[in-house]
Amino acid sequence: MVTIGEIARAAGVSISTVSKSLNGYKEISDQTRNRVKKIAEQMGYTPNAAAQSLVLKRANTIGIVYEVESGLKNLFFAAVLESFRKHIQSKGYDILLLSNNTESKLDYLKHSHSKNVDAVLVISTDESYEAVKKLFNSDLAVLSLDPKEAIHNTIYSDSYSAIRKSCNYLYELGHRKIAFINGSYQNFIGLERLRGYLDFMKEKGLEPLYLKNRSNESYTFHEGYQTMKALFEAYGLPDAVCTVSDLMAMGAIQFFNNHGYHVPKDVSIIGFDDLDICEITTPQLTTIRQDYEEIGLRASEALIEMLDKHIRMLEPIVIDTKIVVRDSCLKNTKY
Amino acid sequence: MVTIGEIARAAGVSISTVSKSLNGYKEISDQTRNRVKKIAEQMGYTPNAAAQSLVLKRANTIGIVYEVESGLKNLFFAAVLESFRKHIQSKGYDILLLSNNTESKLDYLKHSHSKNVDAVLVISTDESYEAVKKLFNSDLAVLSLDPKEAIHNTIYSDSYSAIRKSCNYLYELGHRKIAFINGSYQNFIGLERLRGYLDFMKEKGLEPLYLKNRSNESYTFHEGYQTMKALFEAYGLPDAVCTVSDLMAMGAIQFFNNHGYHVPKDVSIIGFDDLDICEITTPQLTTIRQDYEEIGLRASEALIEMLDKHIRMLEPIVIDTKIVVRDSCLKNTKY
Repeated sequence: MVTIGEIARAAGVSISTVSKSLNGYKEISDQTRNRVKKIAEQMGYTPNAAAQSLVLKRANTIGIVYEVESGLKNLFFAAVLESFRKHIQSKGYDILLLSNNTESKLDYLKHSHSKNVDAVLVISTDESYEAVKKLFNSDLAVLSLDPKEAIHNTIYSDSYSAIRKSCNYLYELGHRKIAFINGSYQNFIGLERLRGYLDFMKEKGLEPLYLKNRSNESYTFHEGYQTMKALFEAYGLPDAVCTVSDLMAMGAIQFFNNHGYHVPKDVSIIGFDDLDICEITTPQLTTIRQDYEEIGLRASEALIEMLDKHIRMLEPIVIDTKIVVRDSCLKNTKY
Repeated sequence: MVTIGEIARAAGVSISTVSKSLNGYKEISDQTRNRVKKIAEQMGYTPNAAAQSLVLKRANTIGIVYEVESGLKNLFFAAVLESFRKHIQSKGYDILLLSNNTESKLDYLKHSHSKNVDAVLVISTDESYEAVKKLFNSDLAVLSLDPKEAIHNTIYSDSYSAIRKSCNYLYELGHRKIAFINGSYQNFIGLERLRGYLDFMKEKGLEPLYLKNRSNESYTFHEGYQTMKALFEAYGLPDAVCTVSDLMAMGAIQFFNNHGYHVPKDVSIIGFDDLDICEITTPQLTTIRQDYEEIGLRASEALIEMLDKHIRMLEPIVIDTKIVVRDSCLKNTKY
């Protein structure tokens, strides 16, 4: 690789002048700066980002704390990360997936400083919550997806409205016995979805059919199956089931398949997320779409804005959802 | 943040001595080095990785070229990347997803140098093939997953044997009209799978039922559906279908569902990959398992070995596969 010493010799200027020219310092005349840059380019010089980030204090690298069940195999979080990756890369940034196995262990803040990342997107359920808090209280630009609490610098779908939309869709189809497959009772997102369900049922004067004491943390097929089983044992066959994830909805469908009931003829089921696989299951899943594109775009814009404007505090960014109608819900003809 | 100047003052030594102590230079006595390190630690000093990597020429960062259809939503490549991530992070490395939208555009080599990455794992179908070739011909430690050609520094499943295993399983169940849903005819992996199928059929004296002129590049549900449709139109109902991806197998199942045939009662179908979703489809998919765990582990070991031993050339690493039996294949009772 070409060094700045070689460029200095070729240009007949000092190393310091080359360095200042390449880093855009104002004290060098335009003429000199342009001449040095041209020579550097002709010689095939690649600026060393480590050296440059020491000078510019900016590495064009966004750190990601990514600590979720199943890692990159988690269909929901991988879809959000993919959208974020696309948008942030279109701005010339690289993504650094921060290891939690550094010398400083779970100290993401130290680790981020050490790797000169400019900003951090946190995609984490909650094991590493203290380490994440420390990031938030730091000088870094930080944004958290689906946070544990509804605080500043967070981005999430409007879960409360989404579940109300979902229940109302089932209600409009004529369903009244609407069961609820819940998510976590330990965090903001999960509780918002429960609140949406309970408020809706109350407003319509319907009995809520849900499990008060079963908090689901993983939103998996297996949890969906088991929760449906428990709901069925507690309340019998519902008209319809409102769920908080597509995989849980698929688990519920499996439960009904295994017990001689047909979805959607005997019972309607609606998902949540709109994963790609909703189109390849039988029946294709009607669901609430989280707007991955928008989440990734807004998250990348927010982090870049924080960097450019030197701000560190943002109001929560709340993204709207919509219903995607496929084949897992039918009109109720019982009443 | 604490600077090395402050540490130097506290320790009563020169900045140069602090720098040399923290970077493990031999010319400093053990006593001094240990004392400086202890003081640095007490003062909460975080070594700046950019500065350190300039000295050590090593950043504990593995670059990833990740250019595949659907990005991180690609279920197969995301599963491999997840396993690799787990293993490489357990060794204290971070993963840098290299943007292809830098000033140097698709020049991954320049970009890798500029970001001081130690080694690069290439997970790429082929748009950026020239850029990848340049990486291979460089001084970097590079390994490529599922390469376009079977050259050095590559890692892949033994596709030829896998497809033979798959066909033999169907044959042992009594199937003779075995159709083949092919992958790419443009690259090594796809051609190996075709070769496995053709050799097997020839050895058993069976007529190969496949599409000579249809190269499939995406391995998607949609491609599987369309290929099954064309096969059905060309050859009628087969006894069984051997496929080169789980998603293609699911597409074929959908085709049969839509045309009044039942899988597995009327026709057996076997997948390839063993994605997590094989367990949640109806029927659950019998398939060839690619050993994600092993691929991720061996890839991380190979890159670290190349770095540690300063070698740059490795023989191809070929990983074995196995059959996972679920519900999509049945014994043939026709003959």
